[in-house]
Amino acid sequence: MNILDIIAKKRDKQELTEEEIKYFIDGYTKNDITDYQAAALIMAIFLNGMTDRETTDLTLAMSCSGETLDMSTLGEVIVDKHSTGGVGDKVSLILLPLISSLGVPVAKMSGRGLGFTGGTIDKLESIPGYRTAISMEQFIKNVKEIGISIISQTQNLAPADKKLYALRDAISCVENIPLIASSIMSKKIASGAQKIVLDVTVGKGAFMSNIGDARKLANTMIKIGKLANRETVCVLTNMDEPLGFAVGNSLEVIEAVKCLKGDMPEDLKEVILALGSQMLLLAGKGENLDENKNKLLENIENGKAYNKFIELVQRHGGDISYIEKLDKLPKAKYIEPIYSQTSGYIHDINAKEIGRLAGMLGAGREKKEDEIDPAVGVVLTKKIADKIERGDVLAYIHSNDMQKLEEAKKYFVQIVKIKEEKIEKPNIILEIKDLGTAP
Amino acid sequence: MNILDIIAKKRDKQELTEEEIKYFIDGYTKNDITDYQAAALIMAIFLNGMTDRETTDLTLAMSCSGETLDMSTLGEVIVDKHSTGGVGDKVSLILLPLISSLGVPVAKMSGRGLGFTGGTIDKLESIPGYRTAISMEQFIKNVKEIGISIISQTQNLAPADKKLYALRDAISCVENIPLIASSIMSKKIASGAQKIVLDVTVGKGAFMSNIGDARKLANTMIKIGKLANRETVCVLTNMDEPLGFAVGNSLEVIEAVKCLKGDMPEDLKEVILALGSQMLLLAGKGENLDENKNKLLENIENGKAYNKFIELVQRHGGDISYIEKLDKLPKAKYIEPIYSQTSGYIHDINAKEIGRLAGMLGAGREKKEDEIDPAVGVVLTKKIADKIERGDVLAYIHSNDMQKLEEAKKYFVQIVKIKEEKIEKPNIILEIKDLGTAP
Repeated sequence: MNILDIIAKKRDKQELTEEEIKYFIDGYTKNDITDYQAAALIMAIFLNGMTDRETTDLTLAMSCSGETLDMSTLGEVIVDKHSTGGVGDKVSLILLPLISSLGVPVAKMSGRGLGFTGGTIDKLESIPGYRTAISMEQFIKNVKEIGISIISQTQNLAPADKKLYALRDAISCVENIPLIASSIMSKKIASGAQKIVLDVTVGKGAFMSNIGDARKLANTMIKIGKLANRETVCVLTNMDEPLGFAVGNSLEVIEAVKCLKGDMPEDLKEVILALGSQMLLLAGKGENLDENKNKLLENIENGKAYNKFIELVQRHGGDISYIEKLDKLPKAKYIEPIYSQTSGYIHDINAKEIGRLAGMLGAGREKKEDEIDPAVGVVLTKKIADKIERGDVLAYIHSNDMQKLEEAKKYFVQIVKIKEEKIEKPNIILEIKDLGTAP
Repeated sequence: MNILDIIAKKRDKQELTEEEIKYFIDGYTKNDITDYQAAALIMAIFLNGMTDRETTDLTLAMSCSGETLDMSTLGEVIVDKHSTGGVGDKVSLILLPLISSLGVPVAKMSGRGLGFTGGTIDKLESIPGYRTAISMEQFIKNVKEIGISIISQTQNLAPADKKLYALRDAISCVENIPLIASSIMSKKIASGAQKIVLDVTVGKGAFMSNIGDARKLANTMIKIGKLANRETVCVLTNMDEPLGFAVGNSLEVIEAVKCLKGDMPEDLKEVILALGSQMLLLAGKGENLDENKNKLLENIENGKAYNKFIELVQRHGGDISYIEKLDKLPKAKYIEPIYSQTSGYIHDINAKEIGRLAGMLGAGREKKEDEIDPAVGVVLTKKIADKIERGDVLAYIHSNDMQKLEEAKKYFVQIVKIKEEKIEKPNIILEIKDLGTAP
């Protein structure tokens, strides 16, 4: 077997065998296959496509290209949750303690953010003391003892995916459904997930800007899940405007804690209930989705979800006094309101632009080495379809730099579109796809 | 302008501008654009194609990526001749002195062979003393004074083409008409050709195995020639069996000298007359192709072509006593006949296999560093359609190694196909394409 024949085969629109795909991934991981050969093959895949079988084989080859986590010692079904990315997405911080409080074990490895705002790990690290890098033994022990652990990806999981993703980024081959799907699924499988609930975001602040592409991505991931024996459900959610109100690291922790205490923005609640009810279903904790939603709401109301979060933070060395008194969390030097100049209804709060604004303030990182400022960001007070009077506060900008504050204020005014006509609240849950509904 | 946008554009089947193509070639030549980015773009070009305009812009960008030769000081139209490659192809050795003897200046830079047998330069170097690496001043001086000079490509001509060709070879992207056409034409243009006659070989020993692809390649090169203001004519010639009888370096020099003295195998004669009459036409030395052929034949008969060859060799430091007494040329230790085991008609002498056999004996090189053995090779005594009696000599193997000799003898017997049925002599000149006949 040699890489020239494999490239020529895909170039000529032929289907690659499992062995050929494994040969490519193994050789590329070990640097036996060069970047330029991989680049040629990836472009050929981009243009000539892959069957579901090929996509699954690529996923599995990447998933076992490095270390893999074996969760079988936990003796229970591990249901993982993943989002394709959005702005203001603090869902994991709320949903994971919540489902853990309902007896579903949560063994979650999460990424740091690369982009406008931090990832779940960056957000957790804004709680002083919270350690995200712990040993595998401690990780498994936490899950066994308190039913939850959330850590950073310290291990060498799916290195082929990391290498291929960086290459795709450098050769204009990112936006391709089979390649995106296999990248996401390979990481989930490597980290030991047995069943997977995916939040496929759609809209201005999402990777998939339209429902058609999101649907294709969801269907592909469901098919990979089926062929790889990892039952997968996709919830397509709206990401035109930020999720909830807060965008920034400690700002999102604050919002998440409030949610766990019952004070939940409507859109965030819908997403949490949709994803959570599916997770309970996959975990075998309830067949009826409406009943599952009630169980979730109940554990918010009775404080069990909040208590589980406190337990998680404490177990990871975090100082829970910061959670109990949220104003102890890192706070920006300048917190300034933005007032509306006109009256009407909000038609647009472009999530991508809000993310960019938060990034400008220091909430994200462009390179792995960059430091994140946990305190900065934006807190909206209004959402799309809300009625606005001239002089109403639209949002608060949290900044540690006067000049950035001024720039952010000007930028924010350009982002928010207010018009006279009334509009409907957008749907948040767009579609739910599972083995039964995927074509 | 940036390479990611250029890759994305071709990936999306859009036409690249002249500026974008120049940006790519300049950046790649200077290593500002990486091999993997070039690989992705080349695969996208391979799969999505290029218009004639794009192909011409690629050709011109490559042709001026390094040094270029300016032949304008010669004050005459430089007509270059190039073959897409074949086995036993000693046409340049005969044709160039021949047309020079008719007053067409020949300023020829030729390549060394990479493959089964040597190139024109390797063949000339089998004449003791012949210097192929001389200064540009001496090269031009030779052309001015004796009307001909044939040297090796010492200069840094079209380095982008060399780099891209090596890359294509490593990513299974060699067999693509626009890329092949631009590669050939860029080198011709860089070496100062103003008009070009191309011998496009077709068949078992050629790069193009079928007439359809050869026609497409010819048409593409003619269009590039038109758009780049370099009038181009393509002669499609049969390369199913070797051209002439000899395959090997000094063996081909011997055959070439015999041809210059009037003893010409029929197929070789046809190719020389077809190409030569077109060269005379392009050089403005005669509109009538049949008359041009007569002029060529006349200068063979009257010895002027042979004398020009002697002048060329002498001027380049070659010892003409080796030409005057051909048996002084390097000779192999073993020269053995191969006898036919059956009677009938020859149906096949696969040119590629004969080339491989010659390579096995040491007539070619696989890597640039390899040494060529000038003496070894094969001399056929029969050609396709010839009648054979059992015991007739089919060929002589020239080898400097006993074991290789034995292997070559066995191999040769497998290559030559003799059947009872009579067959027709194959056509040698398949088609002639010029601006008038290309679509």
